[in-house]
Amino acid sequence: MAVQAAEQQDTVSPQDNATVDLGPAVALSCRECGERIPLGPVFACEACFGPLEIAYDLPSGDPEGLRKQIEAGPDNIWRYAPLLPVPADVASKPSINPGFTKLVKADNLARELGITGSLHIKDDSGNPTHSFKDRVVAIAVEAARAFGFTTLSCSSTGNLAGAVGAAAARAGFRSCVFIPHDLEQGKVVMAAVYGGDLVGIEGNYDDVNRFCSELIGDPLGEGWGFVNVNLRPYYGEGSKTLAYEICEQLGWELPDQIVIPIASGSQLTKIDKGLKELIRIGLVEDRPYKIFGAQAEGCSPVSRAFKDGHDVVRPVRPDTIAKSLAIGNPADGPYVLDIARRTGGAVEDVNDEQVVDAIKLLARTEGIFAETAGGVTVGVTKKLIEEGKLDPSLTTVVLNTGDGLKTLDAVAPTTGPSAIIRPNLDSFREAGLAS
Amino acid sequence: MAVQAAEQQDTVSPQDNATVDLGPAVALSCRECGERIPLGPVFACEACFGPLEIAYDLPSGDPEGLRKQIEAGPDNIWRYAPLLPVPADVASKPSINPGFTKLVKADNLARELGITGSLHIKDDSGNPTHSFKDRVVAIAVEAARAFGFTTLSCSSTGNLAGAVGAAAARAGFRSCVFIPHDLEQGKVVMAAVYGGDLVGIEGNYDDVNRFCSELIGDPLGEGWGFVNVNLRPYYGEGSKTLAYEICEQLGWELPDQIVIPIASGSQLTKIDKGLKELIRIGLVEDRPYKIFGAQAEGCSPVSRAFKDGHDVVRPVRPDTIAKSLAIGNPADGPYVLDIARRTGGAVEDVNDEQVVDAIKLLARTEGIFAETAGGVTVGVTKKLIEEGKLDPSLTTVVLNTGDGLKTLDAVAPTTGPSAIIRPNLDSFREAGLAS
Repeated sequence: MAVQAAEQQDTVSPQDNATVDLGPAVALSCRECGERIPLGPVFACEACFGPLEIAYDLPSGDPEGLRKQIEAGPDNIWRYAPLLPVPADVASKPSINPGFTKLVKADNLARELGITGSLHIKDDSGNPTHSFKDRVVAIAVEAARAFGFTTLSCSSTGNLAGAVGAAAARAGFRSCVFIPHDLEQGKVVMAAVYGGDLVGIEGNYDDVNRFCSELIGDPLGEGWGFVNVNLRPYYGEGSKTLAYEICEQLGWELPDQIVIPIASGSQLTKIDKGLKELIRIGLVEDRPYKIFGAQAEGCSPVSRAFKDGHDVVRPVRPDTIAKSLAIGNPADGPYVLDIARRTGGAVEDVNDEQVVDAIKLLARTEGIFAETAGGVTVGVTKKLIEEGKLDPSLTTVVLNTGDGLKTLDAVAPTTGPSAIIRPNLDSFREAGLAS
Repeated sequence: MAVQAAEQQDTVSPQDNATVDLGPAVALSCRECGERIPLGPVFACEACFGPLEIAYDLPSGDPEGLRKQIEAGPDNIWRYAPLLPVPADVASKPSINPGFTKLVKADNLARELGITGSLHIKDDSGNPTHSFKDRVVAIAVEAARAFGFTTLSCSSTGNLAGAVGAAAARAGFRSCVFIPHDLEQGKVVMAAVYGGDLVGIEGNYDDVNRFCSELIGDPLGEGWGFVNVNLRPYYGEGSKTLAYEICEQLGWELPDQIVIPIASGSQLTKIDKGLKELIRIGLVEDRPYKIFGAQAEGCSPVSRAFKDGHDVVRPVRPDTIAKSLAIGNPADGPYVLDIARRTGGAVEDVNDEQVVDAIKLLARTEGIFAETAGGVTVGVTKKLIEEGKLDPSLTTVVLNTGDGLKTLDAVAPTTGPSAIIRPNLDSFREAGLAS
């Protein structure tokens, strides 16, 4: 017996999956028209150009047994292998093994925000290269293995390049990643240190993306798996593991409310997909949950559309310190709007000053140094409470998807010593810092 | 029934520990003269000025039961609470909960180094503030709580300041940490972002240290717990958890060989102490293990003394990129020499170029971006194999104690793009990077 993944009611023929072993993944299916094709390195529907998603033959009938199997699994995303497009023996293959990051009960922050229920930070800075990108890349690596690719690639503004470089090194792939040539030195070093090829493109991120699309169609790119292009359907599924972990870490319970950053919107839609799968399989009890999306004001096309009551997202030119969220034309924007509205959530944005304040608030209360994207979610949580849109008496989970060490520039201008003193007690006394 | 900690054979009177609950810790005892005093915020023996250590009343008689208790504990250092100077309910107190970091089986690196046994990297960059300092600070915080301190402090060149800032924020302490005023901006930001007071001292690290010693003796410093001064006996015990985790992650087995960086030497001595405790309690089977110490050539007083056959370490003025190991007069140097000699290990050093090469080697083979201290241990491992001092057919564990993101400057000059191209296929073809 089997249940289908949340969005997919069709029957599945096992032949779809005859040559490729990606565990419970049996086919690709179009999110728009439902067209179904065999598993392969493609990302858009030939019939309608809609985005392709994984169709699963998910386990069913014995949720208690599955729960025990998961709990006895490794302390990383592979504990959820039965729910992911990966072979059953995935945990034995070389991987940087991301995931199972801390869910931090944030009582100090809750007090400051006036939250009387429970507040939790899902802190993905604990991943191997310190961002949630390790999750999505790890899944893409297994797809690349299955499809016989030998080179891993991506277009990136930094974080993804590092995640691909690290994952490829450990898994034994060559890597060749593309970035705008004028990135900050820190990001360049992080992307290059794993020894793969790093190519700077004279142009902006859009130019890099366009070049990668060209390369995929050319013989020069043969044998190349672009994690966020031709492997995107697999890659995206990595974000589901955030939903699985949050529920397991809450004692196999759904959170009431969850605040998620929006870049392309993929992460938010996949977390929703993951929650629905857990309900369908019977791993958590079905009850309503609300999904909130968080953007930076300087790149807030989804928040704008949400507030204006539109179904369509109008592209913008990003201008914000939250660079990892600065996608002006988010591919999954319409799906995000649908999920926020359907679950009774909302999409909200905060300005750069509020982002910095929120980074410091989280650091000061919980000892977690978040990247700008974490400042966006914490800042938006604060604003949603003030606006009465987020219920402070319920269980709320807020995502921090990256590490403050990667976006030092955001807080550096306003973060420094309380005093500079000479090395003697008089000088210290004058500074007025003694308790 | 009770067994004593490895170095301590005296009987223990429970009254020693009448007022302070730090679990199995019952007294402080001098490593030199054996003098025993009640638990308190002191670090040097009044009788002989020797360093004070924790004396324990460790569990015994049922290693299987203890092993099960540990395995059912939290995924952090508090799973070892029965072996640490912390109250039994420590896991319920606010802490950044470090530890239980990955032990990575490094097959790719093993191949490159000619290791035919098994090689493992204990990767402490996975701690909350991305260095092993989180372990030692977490234990010091519990001691500070027990002794009624309200302010946490330290002298630091960066990493420790960040660890103290984060831990204090989450645990509800005020913090006030002291650094040389001219540190790199990144380290200053990391130390200040958690909202405690950060004081820059006009002087070098030695000046900072001297100032802190003065402050401890002055009413201005009343109520202050300096994690690496008056709380040092507790703080140091945090490093034992590295030994516990390594053995548990090897399936409750001792490694044959372990390579550990040397700064003050405390970490190495405490890992040895931890291994001996596990043997004594019966959690691992007793068999020989060798401990190797690793230094950077530009600050290698212990390596020098080891090679010269001396028992005493002659201080040096540090000059190396491995700044977190740059202690020219290591307090535990003589103990390190004793352990390396007694276990049949060695102390070796590598130069800065070898450190950088080793950082890149580890990144390229295993996808782990280590700080300079990790380059020192990997580089020394390579050298020890070449010299025939480390047996490549055995089980070897190498420590990486920090994160490459914190020491970007070490690799930046030699790490960058393979090519800069225009965004078109011809330009890419000319670069010669197609597969």
